[in-house]
Amino acid sequence: MRTGKPCAIVGQSGGPTSAINAILAGIIEGAVNSQEISCLYGMKNGIEGLLSEDIVRLDERFRADMGGLDLLEITPSALLGSCRFPLPKELDGDGEKIYERIFEILEKYNIGYFYYIGGNDSMDTVDKLDRYAKAKGIRVSFIGLPKTIDNDLCLTDHASGYGSASKYVATATMEIARDVMSYRLPAVTIVEVMGRDTGWLGCACGLPKALYGTGCDLVYLPEGGFSLDSFLMKAQEIMKKKSWVLCGVCEGISLYGSDDGGVRDAFGHKYLSGIGKLLENTVRRELGCKARSIELNLPQRCSGHIVSKTDIDESRLVGRRAVELSPTGISGVMLGYVRQEGEYGVVIDAFPASEIANRIKCVPDSFIGDGFITKECVEYLNPLIQGEKEIKYKGGLPVHYEL
Amino acid sequence: MRTGKPCAIVGQSGGPTSAINAILAGIIEGAVNSQEISCLYGMKNGIEGLLSEDIVRLDERFRADMGGLDLLEITPSALLGSCRFPLPKELDGDGEKIYERIFEILEKYNIGYFYYIGGNDSMDTVDKLDRYAKAKGIRVSFIGLPKTIDNDLCLTDHASGYGSASKYVATATMEIARDVMSYRLPAVTIVEVMGRDTGWLGCACGLPKALYGTGCDLVYLPEGGFSLDSFLMKAQEIMKKKSWVLCGVCEGISLYGSDDGGVRDAFGHKYLSGIGKLLENTVRRELGCKARSIELNLPQRCSGHIVSKTDIDESRLVGRRAVELSPTGISGVMLGYVRQEGEYGVVIDAFPASEIANRIKCVPDSFIGDGFITKECVEYLNPLIQGEKEIKYKGGLPVHYEL
Repeated sequence: MRTGKPCAIVGQSGGPTSAINAILAGIIEGAVNSQEISCLYGMKNGIEGLLSEDIVRLDERFRADMGGLDLLEITPSALLGSCRFPLPKELDGDGEKIYERIFEILEKYNIGYFYYIGGNDSMDTVDKLDRYAKAKGIRVSFIGLPKTIDNDLCLTDHASGYGSASKYVATATMEIARDVMSYRLPAVTIVEVMGRDTGWLGCACGLPKALYGTGCDLVYLPEGGFSLDSFLMKAQEIMKKKSWVLCGVCEGISLYGSDDGGVRDAFGHKYLSGIGKLLENTVRRELGCKARSIELNLPQRCSGHIVSKTDIDESRLVGRRAVELSPTGISGVMLGYVRQEGEYGVVIDAFPASEIANRIKCVPDSFIGDGFITKECVEYLNPLIQGEKEIKYKGGLPVHYEL
Repeated sequence: MRTGKPCAIVGQSGGPTSAINAILAGIIEGAVNSQEISCLYGMKNGIEGLLSEDIVRLDERFRADMGGLDLLEITPSALLGSCRFPLPKELDGDGEKIYERIFEILEKYNIGYFYYIGGNDSMDTVDKLDRYAKAKGIRVSFIGLPKTIDNDLCLTDHASGYGSASKYVATATMEIARDVMSYRLPAVTIVEVMGRDTGWLGCACGLPKALYGTGCDLVYLPEGGFSLDSFLMKAQEIMKKKSWVLCGVCEGISLYGSDDGGVRDAFGHKYLSGIGKLLENTVRRELGCKARSIELNLPQRCSGHIVSKTDIDESRLVGRRAVELSPTGISGVMLGYVRQEGEYGVVIDAFPASEIANRIKCVPDSFIGDGFITKECVEYLNPLIQGEKEIKYKGGLPVHYEL
């Protein structure tokens, strides 16, 4: 039986983003100001740190430095560290031991509210912990916060981190377009973006051209299918009019429509890399022109120096909202964004984590043209990259919040 | 015999940078305000455009829009387009015809001043045109302006574009460090930077750690030599203390100290790529841990959204200075920066293009430690990345100047 006001704990999980710390900042801000929460802990490296009791006290630290939250919200990556740790599905043998250990620690620290910031896999964790708690009659609220540059979370309009990653990808492709257009020699340049099995981040490659006429000439998403012949033909067509072709491709596009048996991570996801290089070599061989590929790689998710103000502000808001909603007793949910009609704006709502865990949301057909993104896609994506945050520099380099 | 005030012409050549347009902005500003120059032309794609008379009038355009120069100076890549076009060395046969054609066009447009913004190869062009003009008694001033992210130009303290590229590289490695430190799983991450045969840009990888304690743990430049065994040993040593190792390597480091017979460009330079991927695979095989490589690629030279104010301001100044110096009759020179003693500052001086053409300046031994950069290197580099420019955004994306 819990006595007094409960404590809260927060963890970060999955691939870091430029906005995951903004959610954390919102949760800290909410907890420090909350009358319902006696203290806020942070687990280092998500569930992994919780299991080893690698836990830090966050409320005291920031109560003395609330201005630090403004620096934290624009600090990329995960301040508390991240993990990829799938909870066991079966409760037999070692499976149950892990759950027992988790709840033993939660009880020891008098945890009543558990916030977990992550993607589909992390929502699986939220769902499993909630089910276990309910089965055992333990009263802890498990609340997920939506974070992934892949933007493949179901039910929410979009995920935190996606807007900033899109702003980076769109900006980089604009700048790369400007670079490649400076030569007369015919050349095809391939930009490879992240996103696993979905093409949400790939859509950002198409934005500059759709908005301002210069950028990627061709954009291919996994959902739209990819034909090598059609791509080569379109590239040749474009080269009849101008020397350079810039093409954005998602890491998840499949050349042959079949599983290539690549390396898989702890959750069974394929480790993807190399489609850009493969297309580069194909272009050089088949079209006989200069070819280059650029894998945008980690900077897509950690370029804190160029973030979307909309993304960061919403992320901080969803963090605060999680704390506000905790005392209502909701659990086993992920908070998400519901887009309003008319001028862009969102309200925050709660969705069952079970309907998000281990599922993915694909880019709808209506967003995808044959090698380009549609007007509907532009209208969806453009509001998410709006606004810039003032970045603090020292000695010529950005300043990051250090724990 | 020239009548009236002469015209001037400007061209851009070699790999674009984030500062090459700032030099152009300075030249335009100088020419518009000059009493000695009747008009300013721009050649599209350097000498290539000159030969095909692909020439635009610049002074009129900007006289009506001097504010456009502030946008132009932070627009990445080469507004006029670039080329890689080596002038013939021998004046026999077709060789002489090219020179005759160039000077025919210069006479037609009444050109008295010729500004060429580029690197070592472009200074070869400046030198050859100057020699030809002098041999034929033609009075045209040929002035080179120093632009290369490689920073390998002799005589000048540094080249325009290097400061901005370094700011980008240092920022990206700081952010990548923050990303990779979020996991507990032991991992080695390799960041591959440009720079051809020299390690100047590689030095920027070492800056964040030297200044703030977090960044690349190891930095390898071509000048310092590279031993695979020593690298693997050092990486293992670091992993005894923390899970992640971040290593910055220059594209020009040689694994075996021998020519690998790779593809070469029009100037005979090796086309370099892939050392990062090679080390990634080696680490995975030899150390058995997670490994990733990140080739920073074109964004190093075109990330106009994060430029060094020092670099942009100096670049614009050197452009204006070229116009001011033209009427003194100097020719066959490259303007460059002379660093002042004490607090950082530069004066601009002129150096013989012949002593810069086709030569390279290496990083001095005193800048290089065994896997790190020295304090002397930090003191050289850090002033060059100081300050930020206000970037104009529209609809969430940077605005670029369009011709």
